[in-house]
Amino acid sequence: MGEVKCVIGVDFGSDSARALVVNAHTGEELASEVSYYKRWSQGLYSDAARNQFRHHPLDYLESLEECIRGALAKLPPEVAQNVVGIGVDTTGSTPAPVDENGTPLALLDEFRENPNAMFILWKDHTAVREAAEINKLAKSWGGVDYTKYEGGVYSSEWFWAKILHILRADEKVRQAAYSWVEVCDWIPGVLTGTTDPKVLKRSRCAAGHKAMWHQEWGGLPAEEFLTKLDPLLQGLRERLYTETYTSDEKAGELTEEWANRLGLPAGIAVAVGAFDAHMGAVGGGIKENVLVKIMGTSTCDVMVASQEQLAGTLVAGICGQVDGSVIPGLIGLEAGQSAFGDVYAWLRDVLYWSWEALAQEAGLSSAVLETIREKLLIKLTEAAAQVDPSTTTVVALDWLNGRRTPFADQELKGALVGLTLGTDAPRLFRALVEATAFGAKAIVERFREEGLQIEEVVAMGGIPGKNEFVMQVTTDVLGMPIKVVRSEQAVALGAAMFGAVAAGLYVDIAAAQEAMGSGYSHVYTPDPVSTKRYAELYEKYLKIGELLSDTLRTL
Amino acid sequence: MGEVKCVIGVDFGSDSARALVVNAHTGEELASEVSYYKRWSQGLYSDAARNQFRHHPLDYLESLEECIRGALAKLPPEVAQNVVGIGVDTTGSTPAPVDENGTPLALLDEFRENPNAMFILWKDHTAVREAAEINKLAKSWGGVDYTKYEGGVYSSEWFWAKILHILRADEKVRQAAYSWVEVCDWIPGVLTGTTDPKVLKRSRCAAGHKAMWHQEWGGLPAEEFLTKLDPLLQGLRERLYTETYTSDEKAGELTEEWANRLGLPAGIAVAVGAFDAHMGAVGGGIKENVLVKIMGTSTCDVMVASQEQLAGTLVAGICGQVDGSVIPGLIGLEAGQSAFGDVYAWLRDVLYWSWEALAQEAGLSSAVLETIREKLLIKLTEAAAQVDPSTTTVVALDWLNGRRTPFADQELKGALVGLTLGTDAPRLFRALVEATAFGAKAIVERFREEGLQIEEVVAMGGIPGKNEFVMQVTTDVLGMPIKVVRSEQAVALGAAMFGAVAAGLYVDIAAAQEAMGSGYSHVYTPDPVSTKRYAELYEKYLKIGELLSDTLRTL
Repeated sequence: MGEVKCVIGVDFGSDSARALVVNAHTGEELASEVSYYKRWSQGLYSDAARNQFRHHPLDYLESLEECIRGALAKLPPEVAQNVVGIGVDTTGSTPAPVDENGTPLALLDEFRENPNAMFILWKDHTAVREAAEINKLAKSWGGVDYTKYEGGVYSSEWFWAKILHILRADEKVRQAAYSWVEVCDWIPGVLTGTTDPKVLKRSRCAAGHKAMWHQEWGGLPAEEFLTKLDPLLQGLRERLYTETYTSDEKAGELTEEWANRLGLPAGIAVAVGAFDAHMGAVGGGIKENVLVKIMGTSTCDVMVASQEQLAGTLVAGICGQVDGSVIPGLIGLEAGQSAFGDVYAWLRDVLYWSWEALAQEAGLSSAVLETIREKLLIKLTEAAAQVDPSTTTVVALDWLNGRRTPFADQELKGALVGLTLGTDAPRLFRALVEATAFGAKAIVERFREEGLQIEEVVAMGGIPGKNEFVMQVTTDVLGMPIKVVRSEQAVALGAAMFGAVAAGLYVDIAAAQEAMGSGYSHVYTPDPVSTKRYAELYEKYLKIGELLSDTLRTL
Repeated sequence: MGEVKCVIGVDFGSDSARALVVNAHTGEELASEVSYYKRWSQGLYSDAARNQFRHHPLDYLESLEECIRGALAKLPPEVAQNVVGIGVDTTGSTPAPVDENGTPLALLDEFRENPNAMFILWKDHTAVREAAEINKLAKSWGGVDYTKYEGGVYSSEWFWAKILHILRADEKVRQAAYSWVEVCDWIPGVLTGTTDPKVLKRSRCAAGHKAMWHQEWGGLPAEEFLTKLDPLLQGLRERLYTETYTSDEKAGELTEEWANRLGLPAGIAVAVGAFDAHMGAVGGGIKENVLVKIMGTSTCDVMVASQEQLAGTLVAGICGQVDGSVIPGLIGLEAGQSAFGDVYAWLRDVLYWSWEALAQEAGLSSAVLETIREKLLIKLTEAAAQVDPSTTTVVALDWLNGRRTPFADQELKGALVGLTLGTDAPRLFRALVEATAFGAKAIVERFREEGLQIEEVVAMGGIPGKNEFVMQVTTDVLGMPIKVVRSEQAVALGAAMFGAVAAGLYVDIAAAQEAMGSGYSHVYTPDPVSTKRYAELYEKYLKIGELLSDTLRTL
């Protein structure tokens, strides 16, 4: 046996970056480290009340270094020298304006503190108006509907809406922005010294799912379409890109500078980046007829299908279908719920408000408050699990952060319907858990209505390992078993698999999955009585959503 | 000047009885005392989850003695000897089954612990099905619609629905129940030794508003109607009553026995009883074109109008219109909201749940918990008052305890619509306050649509003296000034006025009001900007209610 080769997966999330060092032959997870973004954790540059969420590029760079160095520090020194590849996944669509060198404007002195010069985080909804304009024009301009491979509805969370919003909102940024990058393109560009917009390898995943890029029309939407949308976009198209790349390809090789910063060998392969959910689905073992749900604050629901299986079907109302966005050679299909764990955290925060408001009267230290905040969700979960379903009348709508799938609509909102004086906090929580499960079912139904078979559901992310009650309700509502991915770091593991393929260790992703996959730690099975009851309640959920949708948009 | 004559008003509420000793010439409040019902405060005989709420008759008798004796004990001994009249008001419809002597069955050994043998408190909703049957039959049997003077919709909170429910549910009670009494009839009957159902003077107010009694059809509904409703009712009609009495009349004179128990002179006048809201409206200074709102856990909204002013109009969708139920000689009109302060307490309790669940983790004593519970509503109110209305998207439906007016419907439920991840507890609270104000406006609109003029709104009860924010929002939503009654005991004061008239001190109620009224402590005036904004939000409240009503009934 030769020496043990290693790969590193780096997963850039909303709050932190995580590096995972993996045995490239077995997938064994050797060490990992999380680094929280410093500026973000101080609440800088964001404004939740306006749904503005921004990441400073320095947060990414500092955490990139910290997490890789931190993970390697837990291992014998020779491990670092055996690393042969790096894969990178990030949130998305999370674009930033860059200058001619591909440097995000916020790294320039002039724009250091300007949120509009930073990465516009996926969940930023400041571009609701622009998304609406894109949708309107796409349906009416007489040419091809560029949204058709993105579910037919363009979201305020996506590339062009965000760009247009910033160009309109900030003249200085507009003047200085030569081009725009997704963070999943920029990080591999930084590591390989290829940030120059003219050479930067753009992710097929990001381009196809969020930027209306498609081979059918030769890349990005036509200049005519973009300038019709707003003359401010004039000329930007040719300063972006035409080609895109799948993540089994190399973005380039690690530069000397970054090899030194990270303590890794220079020249090793860095894979083309992609979004976290897509690489995560790979880490979780995605294949045809399997729905992978990445369940955290929100969910991302991913499937893959062959050209033959889809037979030209465009799945309407999902977030997109893109050739090679998950596994090269297969069409990647993406859907998701705008809020999942965030819905539970919402009720937690509603209750927790009272603890902060009355901390003084109750004589509570900030340490006790922190404990309370942590335990509240556990208590709510325990109590909700004890509720006899026949004693509650509440049905909730889970759209507290708008709706992503089916049929993206950021202007929708949540609701708690059927309150009585006997409705207590556990009953509210139970209704919210059921609502998020109904939201999950609505996605499954959407795929099925388009003829896609779902034989298996695989779950990963923060929720499956943490909340059995939520998982059981979701299983019961779906009426299908849910397999929980054993690895708690499956997203970073997926990124590592791409690093391994880019380094030439495997012929393709399927081979890397076969060798490096973690398997499953638990299978939830549906209770038939609950499944039957939830089937009826789901009809009420749909009905209430239908009745309220128009009104919710006006509130 | 002769000696100072006094009268006593006794107000039987949901949790306690209150006695108020009043200078009969000036209305000066000399002393008062509250006595909490002992069995009720231990939670006996009730089951909130099933909406079953029962009062043991001993709770009434013991608290009657305690509160009158307690109030008199605060005054020089000679005051008791100068008391010339007693007025009594109670909740309602709060009926109990009685034997041939008029003794509530729960006072007999056999039924001592049987909730079905006790007074069925106004807010008991166990008779929802029976109310529906009464409504159906009233519209379909081919004879007169007996609900027509009670707003056209019979409620599960009322006399016949409750009687029928108990007769069906409890065979032993059915066998033993010779007749039924309202507590507002029974208390004066006890004090004057006239509980015998054949001589007991029945309240016009209770009979006309809750028992479908009307001169037009010679009293209670026809035997044919009642037996058609259920043969179990056969023969009960003739063991009830034909005549009814307004509260300016004497029920009788205080017996020796009760004079001794209370420390009062025997033979003094005891007025015919009536419901708290009706006597309260008198205490608050009701007259034509004034809407009196008694605002507490729920509201009761009362108006009076002359036969000429009404000109034969039947106001649909209110709780009833009855000749002499408020002021003899005028038609009393009653409406109300099933939950008002209870809606605020609901959110308080949702939040407070977390304090009880985590009391141990936070190291909180039960004394601290009690403080927190008391302060929560204050904190919520303060924070809700600070919310910038442009930053909230929530619209609530206030029907957490069903809807009383307009168009009584106990199967409706509450809702919180338009939730976002930014919706916090103060925003929820604000939406609930606005919803209860919208509920108040819906009542005003109902009266106006029937041609009744409302020139002035008068508020009394627990809320007006306690929550400026709620009062200001209600004022802004109504777009009318609200005058707050100075007396905090205006209901008992109203009862005392009836005691004074029954004792012959005044020729009529208007004269007693003139001499004994307390005046007003504060006038809230609407802010035009808020009024305009709320007018738009009210349309959304109506719209959401309309959209959801059918579904809410099925949850």
